[in-house]
Formats: sequence, C-alpha cells, structure tokens
Amino acid sequence: MESKNILIKDATIIADEIIKGSLLIENDKIVEISDKIGISDAEEVILADDKILLPGLVNTHTHLSMTLMRGLADDIPLDSWLNNHIWPVEANLTGEHCYAGALLACAEMIKSGTTCFNDMYFFMDQVAKAADEAGIRGMLSHGMIDFGDEEKRKNEFKETIRIIKKCHNTGDGRIKVAFGPHSPYTCSQELLEGVKKESNKYGVRIHIHVSETQKEVSDIQEIHGKRPFEYLNDINFLGEEVTAAHAVWVSDSEIDIIKEKNVKLSHNPSSNMKLSSGISPVAKLLDKEVCVSLGTDGPASNNNMDLFEEMKISALLQKVNTMDPTVLSAANVYKMATINGANSLGLENEIGSIEVGKKADIVLVNMKIPKLTPFRNPISHLVYSASGGDVDTVLCNGTVLMKNKELLTIDEARVIEIAENASEDLLSKC
Amino acid sequence: MESKNILIKDATIIADEIIKGSLLIENDKIVEISDKIGISDAEEVILADDKILLPGLVNTHTHLSMTLMRGLADDIPLDSWLNNHIWPVEANLTGEHCYAGALLACAEMIKSGTTCFNDMYFFMDQVAKAADEAGIRGMLSHGMIDFGDEEKRKNEFKETIRIIKKCHNTGDGRIKVAFGPHSPYTCSQELLEGVKKESNKYGVRIHIHVSETQKEVSDIQEIHGKRPFEYLNDINFLGEEVTAAHAVWVSDSEIDIIKEKNVKLSHNPSSNMKLSSGISPVAKLLDKEVCVSLGTDGPASNNNMDLFEEMKISALLQKVNTMDPTVLSAANVYKMATINGANSLGLENEIGSIEVGKKADIVLVNMKIPKLTPFRNPISHLVYSASGGDVDTVLCNGTVLMKNKELLTIDEARVIEIAENASEDLLSKC
Ligand SMILES: [Zn+2]
Ligand SMILES: [Zn+2]
Repeated sequence: MESKNILIKDATIIADEIIKGSLLIENDKIVEISDKIGISDAEEVILADDKILLPGLVNTHTHLSMTLMRGLADDIPLDSWLNNHIWPVEANLTGEHCYAGALLACAEMIKSGTTCFNDMYFFMDQVAKAADEAGIRGMLSHGMIDFGDEEKRKNEFKETIRIIKKCHNTGDGRIKVAFGPHSPYTCSQELLEGVKKESNKYGVRIHIHVSETQKEVSDIQEIHGKRPFEYLNDINFLGEEVTAAHAVWVSDSEIDIIKEKNVKLSHNPSSNMKLSSGISPVAKLLDKEVCVSLGTDGPASNNNMDLFEEMKISALLQKVNTMDPTVLSAANVYKMATINGANSLGLENEIGSIEVGKKADIVLVNMKIPKLTPFRNPISHLVYSASGGDVDTVLCNGTVLMKNKELLTIDEARVIEIAENASEDLLSKC
Repeated sequence: MESKNILIKDATIIADEIIKGSLLIENDKIVEISDKIGISDAEEVILADDKILLPGLVNTHTHLSMTLMRGLADDIPLDSWLNNHIWPVEANLTGEHCYAGALLACAEMIKSGTTCFNDMYFFMDQVAKAADEAGIRGMLSHGMIDFGDEEKRKNEFKETIRIIKKCHNTGDGRIKVAFGPHSPYTCSQELLEGVKKESNKYGVRIHIHVSETQKEVSDIQEIHGKRPFEYLNDINFLGEEVTAAHAVWVSDSEIDIIKEKNVKLSHNPSSNMKLSSGISPVAKLLDKEVCVSLGTDGPASNNNMDLFEEMKISALLQKVNTMDPTVLSAANVYKMATINGANSLGLENEIGSIEVGKKADIVLVNMKIPKLTPFRNPISHLVYSASGGDVDTVLCNGTVLMKNKELLTIDEARVIEIAENASEDLLSKC
C-alpha cells in the first residue's frame, strides 16, 4: 500500500477534550492532532471549519441484510411478525439477496455516520463482500440455530468455521468474524459449549441475543430452572469475549454476573420499544460499570440504522423510565455509541475515540445548520438535536467513504437499484 | 395577487388513498389531483417522480424563540432547569431576541417538513414578523401568567389583545392569534375565566399547558381539591376551542371530560421523556376518540423541532409503555401529525390533508435514498424510517418555501448568523 496523507483542517474535535484543531491521517491511522499542522505535507485536505469531528459510531447489534424487509410488517405482535412475515421470507434468502441487503445497509450506515457494525445473519461471506466494497469496518457472525438437532449443529459449526477461514481479518483488517449462536432458547447447551471452545481456539468473539423478551426468560426458567444469564454462567459460557444483545429483562443478580464476567451488552432501544419487548435497565447497568453499547437491531424492527436517533431515544427512554432526568446524560450516551461500542467488539485499542495511533474512522457533522444553532454544546447537539442525515463526511481506516454527503466507494443509485430488485425477487418467492 | 399555477408532477401522493399522480396548485389552493394533468398550463413544474407527497406537518405545541436556549442545560431536574437556566435567560429577552429565535425555528421547521405551528411565548408580534417572512403558517399566543396578581393580569390581557389586533389573520391569512394562558398553576381563576370570555368575543382559540407533571396535579389538587382537567371543567373553561399541551397525567374521568368537551390535546413525547415528566396515555386517548396531535415543545427541552422524529418516538413509546406492539400504528401517528394537528387548531377545513380545495401546504420527501429502500409502505417509511432531513421540497399557502433542500424565502446562512448573535447577546446579559 502506498502511503497517503489526509489532513482534516480546523475542525471542532471531540477528543478527550473538545478542541479546535486539525488532524493528520497517514494511511489508516491518526498520526497527529494539533492546531499547528500546515497544509503543505498533505496530499488531500478536507476543510472542516464548520464541522464537528467525532469518531465513527459503532453499531454493536444488527442484521444488515434485513434492510430488504424494511417496512414489510409493522405494528403487529412479535409472534406473528416472526412466524408470518420474517421467517417465511428468510426461508427463501439467497447469498445474492444477502449481498444486496448488506450493501444497502452499508450505504445507510455510512450516510448516517456509522463506520463499524456487529452483524449476525446468513451468507456472511456475501456480507463481507459488501462491507469490503463499501470500505466499512464490521464483525460478522453466522447466526447459529440447532434447536437441539445434532445434524443442524454440525452444519452451523461448519458454516461458521468456513466464514472464519474465508473472511476473518480480510479487507485490510477491517472485516472480522465472530461466532453467532442465536440465543439460549434456539441453541442447545451442546452448541453453546462448542461455541465457547471453538471461539477460544480461533481467537474470535461471540455474538448472541440474550433476554430480549419476558417470554424468553420464562421459557428458559421452565427448561433450566434459572434465568438466561444465570444459565449461561453455569455452563461457563460468559466472558469478556461475549457481546450480548438486548439484555432487557435482567435481575440484580444477573447484573452482578454480567459485571463479574465482563460481558459486553448491546442496548437496542428502538427495536425493544417497537416490538414491545421492554426497557433494559441501562442507567442501572452503567452505574454498576457494565459496558453497554448501542445497536439498531435489524432494519425490519427499527426501521432504520441511524445511531444518532438511537442515542437520543436511549437517553430519553431511561429518563422517563426512571423518572429521573439526570440519568444517561448526553456524555454517557455518546460514550455508548463510540468507545463502549469499540470495547464491546474488543476493538478499543483501534477505534471508538479520536486519539493519535488509532484507526482513522472519522465522521464530520455540519454544525452550520439551523437545528444545531446556536452552536453551544457539541455533545448535547450530537445526541439531542442531530440525526444521521446531518453527517457530511465519513472516513474509515483512512479512506474517505463519503464527502459532502456523496458516497465515494459505492454508487448510491446502483445500490438502491440492486436492493429494490433483490427485495422484489425475494418477496416474489414467498 | 396575481394568479399563479404550480404543477407537482408524478408524485406518490398520500391522500385518502396512496396514488401515483400529479397535483395542480392555483394561488394558495390545491385545485386538482389526477394522473392526467398536462404540464402545459402550469407556470412552474416540480418533477416528483421519486418523491412522496404529503401535507405539511402541524406542530401543535412549541415555543419558537426557545431555539436560542437549545443545549443550554440538559440532564438536570425540571426545577433547576427552569429556575437556574431558563427563567434567568427569559428575564432578559427582548423582541429582537424573540424575532431571531423564531426566524431560526421557522428555518428548522421548513427544513424538516413542518408548515404550521402553534406557539406560545413573548413578543409575539416579532414571532409573527418572522413567520410572515418565512412564509410559514402559525397560530401565536402570548404566554399569560399572573400568579394571582391583578396588575399582571391586566397587562397580560392588554398584550394579548394588542397582538390579536396587530397580527390576527395577517400574512395572507397564514398568521392567527390565540389566547395563551400558561397553565392552571401559573394563572388565577380570574385570568382563566377572562380568557374564556375574551377568546369568545374575539373568535380566537385558547392554547394552554395542562397536567405536564405529577407535581402540577398534586399542587392543583391541594389548592382546588380536584385534578387539573376537573378544575378547568368546573370553571367552564374547557371547550373545542381549547388546545391543551401535554396531558401526561390524566385520570379516566378526566379523559371522559376531555372527550365530552372536545378539548384538543397536543402530545409532546420527547419533551416529556427528556424532562422525566411521564408518559401520556395516548393509545387510550385515541381509543376514546379524543383528538390528539403532536408537538415538539420548545427546542430547549427536546432539542429539535423534527416532527418526523416525534412521530417515531410517539409510536415507540406507546408500544413499550403498554407492552402491546399493535397500539399507535404508523397510520394513526401519521394522522396525529397531520389532520389531527389541523383539527387541534380549528384548521381542519384548510390544511392537514391532500384534498382539492385545501390550502397548498405540501411536503415532498425523497424516497430514492438508502434508508427508505426498498420503497414499500410510504406511511411506515415516513413514520419509522425517515427523519426531517429527508424532506426535499416544501410549499405553504401555495408558495415554495424550500426546493431541493434550499430555503427560498429566507437566507439560511443569514438566519443562522442572526440567531448566533442574538443568543450570544442574550447570554451575555445573564
Ligand atoms: Zn437481533
Ligand atoms: Zn410548552
């Protein structure tokens, strides 16, 4: 790779402190942050005098290819949503569909300032292909489900290991693979134990859904005589390499387990609200110093991938749920979407903050717009006033993916066309 | 006024049904909707083949000039927010500040698809001036507070009547004035009774805050021995000309009163969540056929004026609060932001839907964008996937206020500059 320098000049930089200054990128890394960098050395200069510079947001739980099912079914009970709408469509999914949906999701994420995602779905090599083309960073897991069937279980391991071998650490290191056991109610104990062992062997993380609904908790209690996190703890499944999505229904003793085992949680407020799953006790979890990050969940239950929206909704939901306006401050929810996200994927040394030595995953938000005026408190503005549409420029791994709202690595019109066609084809088969 | 025709061609029109067709505007009104209108007669043609056409959204409770206080104080208790941050600033407000803040709010509303607002604040002739310049529609009320002081009360009536005489039905009929008694806990019974009488005399509406917090309810109970809507009913204050903002804490018997007296409610979920006020029982209110519309409240407690965001948050909040995903469907929340908004301001014969004979208050949303792909269910997409930033073109009263995201009636950069200066000047005095 040739060396390339990019200078982002005179931005309002959200680092440890908020500073007005410039940032120099060499290849994939941030190499200097200062108010004294001249433009002479840089091959590309991005003027950012009217921009807020922040790290790319990290979406720690989603299902990219479900963009194809956006708006397919709303306002109906979870059972009917899954049984009558989502699963029949998923039964007809092909790799081409998943590629198209993932490419669409990448376009949507880049446009709204997300540069890293944690995905669980099917045909994950096709998702890797889309993410690689788009230039975005992602952790991919094949969703494993065995319902106790040994044959199915074997195939799920085979597929996951195939994806690890084919995709892990590809795309200049942007693409990583994890194990994705779907949940403790769809996976057997054998599968979960196998995942723990194999993930260790391959040195990859684990991505799982836990305690999304009350029904799930009572089902697990009926089968195993304990709550989901207690059960997972008893079979030695939990650890710092586990990212658990949702964690809506957690008891105090489960919170202690999560904290002790350093399990990372992904909070998905829009999906949990839309499906009436419940409200995760995020304020309490953060008080206990659990690492909680943010996810959008799949676009079929949200119905978008805008982490700015997710930040606002998270803060607002905790405030009204606890009847305490001081909980989940703008600064804390901003951390959830950035450094906690990085931490949740084991990438805290690479991304999640603006620091020299970290990867250049960078978002510029235009602050000279009516809804961010008066320009007063950048973090408050990002959390409470902005939305993904206010993102102007995005870099990932030192490459400019969007400039002045124009996608550079992929052709937006073409991506939309591919996705429309894939969605039409998919539904015609159901 | 010269006659002027505008044709919006080949849009996806959200009328009674969703149709693909064109819409002809003559002067301030919609005169034809059909798929057979030629372009020959129109002086201006707006091509809208890739656009959703909907009525301009109606924000039924806000405080425009509070844009100047956006992000001033977040994440703190309501008492401290008001006493230490908002009221000290408001004590120094001048007409110039209010003009600047209102102009900024108009820019923000137009950019996010709102064409009509219901405002309560101070120096309302300055707000009228801003709204008139921007070309937007609005109902203005001077916020009246007497705390039982007769001198204050007299001045509040004097100011309101001055504003009615100066501004009511100005701006080609776009600007209307209402009485704005602040709330039953800041206004004496004499003031409220006077408002009822005078509003009748002048033929204008009433805009009031009611039952925003539990504290307000218990304070009113302590003084009057009944709950706020019961008290207001007993003094014969309630009627179809009253728009009550918030209505968070309402008993079943209060809901019956609201329904019987045909009081219009403005639901403000973001503000109620952010200030930890509580959750209005909107699903139940709509079940009882109460007219509930949507408001953003002031930008200091939201912190933006995006009604698309408010639509999504409303639906999500009711679903999680009732643990029933079927409540407050996309179609119902869309009605809240449009025809119910019109109804809440007594403007249901003029605005709030796309119909021949109604005013041409029209919004075009670009549907060829990743987050609205696949293009499947326009109402679901508008409520759950879109945000204000996806609005492309806005008309009010037959005049194009924004085209291809560019404001035409006001200069965006100048508005931002005026507002920044006003905010700085205001805070320097505190
Ligand atoms: Zn999920
Ligand atoms: Zn208010």
